[in-house]
Amino acid sequence: MPITPPRFTLDLPDWALEELQQLPNVFPDLKDRMAAVLHFARLNTKHQSGGPFAAGVFERDSGRLIVIGVNRVIPLNCSSAHAEITALTLAQQILGCYDLGGPGMSAHQLVVNWSPCAMCFGAVLWSGVRSLVIAGADAEMMAITGFDEGPMPANWRSELERRGIELIEGLMRDEALDGFRDFAASGAVVYNGRQG
Amino acid sequence: MPITPPRFTLDLPDWALEELQQLPNVFPDLKDRMAAVLHFARLNTKHQSGGPFAAGVFERDSGRLIVIGVNRVIPLNCSSAHAEITALTLAQQILGCYDLGGPGMSAHQLVVNWSPCAMCFGAVLWSGVRSLVIAGADAEMMAITGFDEGPMPANWRSELERRGIELIEGLMRDEALDGFRDFAASGAVVYNGRQG
Repeated sequence: MPITPPRFTLDLPDWALEELQQLPNVFPDLKDRMAAVLHFARLNTKHQSGGPFAAGVFERDSGRLIVIGVNRVIPLNCSSAHAEITALTLAQQILGCYDLGGPGMSAHQLVVNWSPCAMCFGAVLWSGVRSLVIAGADAEMMAITGFDEGPMPANWRSELERRGIELIEGLMRDEALDGFRDFAASGAVVYNGRQG
Repeated sequence: MPITPPRFTLDLPDWALEELQQLPNVFPDLKDRMAAVLHFARLNTKHQSGGPFAAGVFERDSGRLIVIGVNRVIPLNCSSAHAEITALTLAQQILGCYDLGGPGMSAHQLVVNWSPCAMCFGAVLWSGVRSLVIAGADAEMMAITGFDEGPMPANWRSELERRGIELIEGLMRDEALDGFRDFAASGAVVYNGRQG
């Protein structure tokens, strides 16, 4: 075993910390929440600080911003550092609770620039959010970028509903796809599992 | 936004670091790998340092131990800090690569004391491991503990195979279930998402 205790620190790139300081505290309009997420996804491509994905955690009703996270797989050498897990994990740290739907808490919403992959679908279920907003869920993102979403349960939409998580789809789909096209044109690495 | 930059550190409890120093560097026998994982799972219950789950990453052919991780959801306030994600993430840090099946690397194996949940199934796919060893995959664990595995794709076994990940099931199932019974008897919190 290595003498150094194994540990992993999940954080955001410097540009994201600076952008977060510039954002309003509250996003009453749902479209503005997605626009902020799409902005972070594009900047993550531009700064080559991870894959072209971003996710924001907001209070569902007030629109108060908790945090926006981005994909950090390659820069942090962590295959599970997808945007959703990054955002949910950082939100849980900020709020001091592993359950974003815990007793006495406001309802929280996750806003993402595409549908969750097989892993992040499960992460959404366990996070405690009560609302998931996505720009799209069809095959177009995979066709443009080459990213693999993995095998989803056939009834993933009804599984969300059954667990009390509302799903809102198709918000700013065209703008999201434009961001993926920029990523594809950048020549950046698509990090699907097992390159070897 | 909070002025403090949001970040999250994933690490192991002190007892686990001490145990790791005591373990052999190499586990040629597959059953010994699972026995070590079951030992960590039991200790995690005993020390109340997370749920009753542990996962080890080994070189598949040599049996060299990379790391054993444990569930850290409640102590670290992180709903995705399941044993599998903890072990895979720490192994990727130790090896300096987000892909445990990357070019020039040995084949790696994940050994877990039960089948992965919906989230961890996806995490296994993206991790680059080429072998998954589990003590069981039936409903008995959920019946004993109350933990929810979530909705899995119906064909999850063949999806592993299709992606070049071998699956070995049923290794030390009875011993694993004994560990879950100890957890259930301890009265510890079952942290399924959304307590509120």
